[in-house]
Amino acid sequence: RIDGARLWDSLMEMGQIGGTPKGGCNRLTLTDVDRRGRDLFARWCSEAGLAMTVDAMGNMFARRAGTEAGLPPVMMGSHLDTQPTGGKFDGVLGVLAGLEVLRSLDDLNIRTRHPIEVANWTNEEGSRFAPAMVASGVFAGAYTLEQAYAIRDRDGKALGDELERIGFKGEAPCGGRAIRAMFELHIEQGPILEDEGIDIGVVTHGQGQRWYEVTLTGFESHAGSTPMPRRRDALVGAAKVVELVNRVGLDHPPLAVSTVGMLQPYPGSRNVIPGQVFLTCEFRHPEEAVLVAMDRALRDGIAAIAAEAKLDVEIKQVFDYPPVPFDEGCVGAVRRAAERGGFRHRDIVSGAGHDACYIARVAPTAMIFTPCVGGISHNESEEISPAWASAGTQVLLHAVLEIAEV
Amino acid sequence: RIDGARLWDSLMEMGQIGGTPKGGCNRLTLTDVDRRGRDLFARWCSEAGLAMTVDAMGNMFARRAGTEAGLPPVMMGSHLDTQPTGGKFDGVLGVLAGLEVLRSLDDLNIRTRHPIEVANWTNEEGSRFAPAMVASGVFAGAYTLEQAYAIRDRDGKALGDELERIGFKGEAPCGGRAIRAMFELHIEQGPILEDEGIDIGVVTHGQGQRWYEVTLTGFESHAGSTPMPRRRDALVGAAKVVELVNRVGLDHPPLAVSTVGMLQPYPGSRNVIPGQVFLTCEFRHPEEAVLVAMDRALRDGIAAIAAEAKLDVEIKQVFDYPPVPFDEGCVGAVRRAAERGGFRHRDIVSGAGHDACYIARVAPTAMIFTPCVGGISHNESEEISPAWASAGTQVLLHAVLEIAEV
Ligand SMILES: NC(=O)NCCC(=O)O
Ligand SMILES: NC(=O)NCCC(=O)O
Repeated sequence: RIDGARLWDSLMEMGQIGGTPKGGCNRLTLTDVDRRGRDLFARWCSEAGLAMTVDAMGNMFARRAGTEAGLPPVMMGSHLDTQPTGGKFDGVLGVLAGLEVLRSLDDLNIRTRHPIEVANWTNEEGSRFAPAMVASGVFAGAYTLEQAYAIRDRDGKALGDELERIGFKGEAPCGGRAIRAMFELHIEQGPILEDEGIDIGVVTHGQGQRWYEVTLTGFESHAGSTPMPRRRDALVGAAKVVELVNRVGLDHPPLAVSTVGMLQPYPGSRNVIPGQVFLTCEFRHPEEAVLVAMDRALRDGIAAIAAEAKLDVEIKQVFDYPPVPFDEGCVGAVRRAAERGGFRHRDIVSGAGHDACYIARVAPTAMIFTPCVGGISHNESEEISPAWASAGTQVLLHAVLEIAEV
Repeated sequence: RIDGARLWDSLMEMGQIGGTPKGGCNRLTLTDVDRRGRDLFARWCSEAGLAMTVDAMGNMFARRAGTEAGLPPVMMGSHLDTQPTGGKFDGVLGVLAGLEVLRSLDDLNIRTRHPIEVANWTNEEGSRFAPAMVASGVFAGAYTLEQAYAIRDRDGKALGDELERIGFKGEAPCGGRAIRAMFELHIEQGPILEDEGIDIGVVTHGQGQRWYEVTLTGFESHAGSTPMPRRRDALVGAAKVVELVNRVGLDHPPLAVSTVGMLQPYPGSRNVIPGQVFLTCEFRHPEEAVLVAMDRALRDGIAAIAAEAKLDVEIKQVFDYPPVPFDEGCVGAVRRAAERGGFRHRDIVSGAGHDACYIARVAPTAMIFTPCVGGISHNESEEISPAWASAGTQVLLHAVLEIAEV
């Protein structure tokens, strides 16, 4: 059995780094705070006698050797970066549960044939640098290193430069090596497991996602002396786009979701008619065909809005992510581990994107979900119980042991 | 006659301070750039032999003595602060034209019975610190010093602290002294004069304004795993408010205008449902009764939107500014000066607010408008011709001389 108290203590200690007054975390990727989180994780790994490798995307891999030379590792892990107003568990649980599994194997004196690694993937959240999960994406060959390094945040800083700045542009190549299997434990970030009183979600699929950046351009002018009919107000157009995006989600019930998360009018002055608006939009659905229909509705709808409001428009798709089926063998290992532990479990689809969804392209992969209170995530009040954390980690341990072979 | 070339040179030199690549100006009030603009104006005044006074609101008054002791001054002036993406003329023309009038009086060896002052009013624009025209407002008794000092920008910095920081919290009391008359020359910031081929607008009224801050609060959560029906998306509500505000303006044609200039979703992350949105809204109309009706429509409309979208709402009115009639005597002086100069002129209502609108509460006041290209203002491409600038300044000179008595 894993040590639930030790796991919880580690979660709480990591939660101090970038901890917010409301009990959440602000550990945005590649900031100084992210560096401090990484340094703490590295220290814990070193204290546990694990060998640390950092790759060219800043992904961190802490390895416990196997008994047989030359075998590919079984991997666990998730991410330590958070949303600007995120919680203490999204991502962090999967990394620290991985560490707890390795600590427990030491306590129990268990050796495995395959090496086991615990990974911290860079920029999973995608809040500062879009798209999300870009570093596991590079690992899986979805992007080149050059593409990833060139991504800029809203202040114009490049991901590659920020990696270097915080000292985590590592020597190891990103990807291109064999992985026996990958397991990611994560909080559900939705309400289903808690609503149904279930301890463990056996994740069978990840849904597809499309992310966009939309820029509407009108003409800035004086709010007091520009008559209504002469205006080209980019924010009035953007408001219609926000409503369009919401409607496109509602038009494909019950599974589709659609969100405008970021919206910035320019120049953003009280008495200036906004001349330009930048906004982000994202759609998700488990079926590719529905995403195609949503994409069409978005493009047609925006074209109509822009024409009517006399605005110029640019639509850039920044992320196109097909639905992902996980590996049957690994999913089976998770289900068996849940049964063995006597936990109530059910199959579930992941609403969020995860690093595991990219790794599934290059290695057999599965995910384990634990419930979270009220289904709330990407919110400082995100909460789980220590019992849920322990149950998920226990299942992680047994799934990994099945594949890594004792 | 005034020296049009000298005036234009001064306008261009001031335009370098905070000059933007697009040819506009970013000289936001009480920034370091604003200080540099103030320092340049102070140097020019000192070179012209004028006595400078700075009051407790940072208003600057450069005085040319009159021939008779104890008489109240005739004042000219406007403001040197700009919008974040403003032009080189909004406000600046009125200050530097005032300086040019005093320079010309020296050239022409003209003495006046009354002293003449040229003023640079602090924070006219209201972009950084709302409301606009707050320093002429304090001068006219509309606000107390304490109220003004306590106003904070979006970064939480207080107006009083920023005044101190840039070294312009002066010793002189703000207001409480007699002014014989006040004349403000300004660009129209609207399209009427240019459309009609007219050189000089004789401003008879300023329209009324109401400014608001609206905060909508829903609940932040994960954009991928929160089903549509469970959402309380503050941005979807805010989009409806933007459309409401626009409609309220359109509902009172042809004179009403309505604008949302600033809108900030929180936390502003691509894959987080916005939990809160802050936005500003402003209405303008020459009749108080219409402003009352617009206020009612706004409040009722927002209440309905918030109820439907399950959002909490807070509406703060930050500016309530009744329509202003200017002084008949001063307006007459402007009209006579325009006729004397042989300029095409017409009566006009000001769409924008101006410091003159507050000073009108404590002294006989009038305004002179010059055309601007395309009616464009609060935009880096704001433009006027040197001939328009000279014509306006010429009219300013003669209106002032009539009241200051040669
Ligand atoms: N798990 C998670 O919140 N990932 C961020 C990417 C996404 O929005 O799905
Ligand atoms: N003249 C001018 O643009 N003043 C700023 C205040 C307003 O928005 O009317």
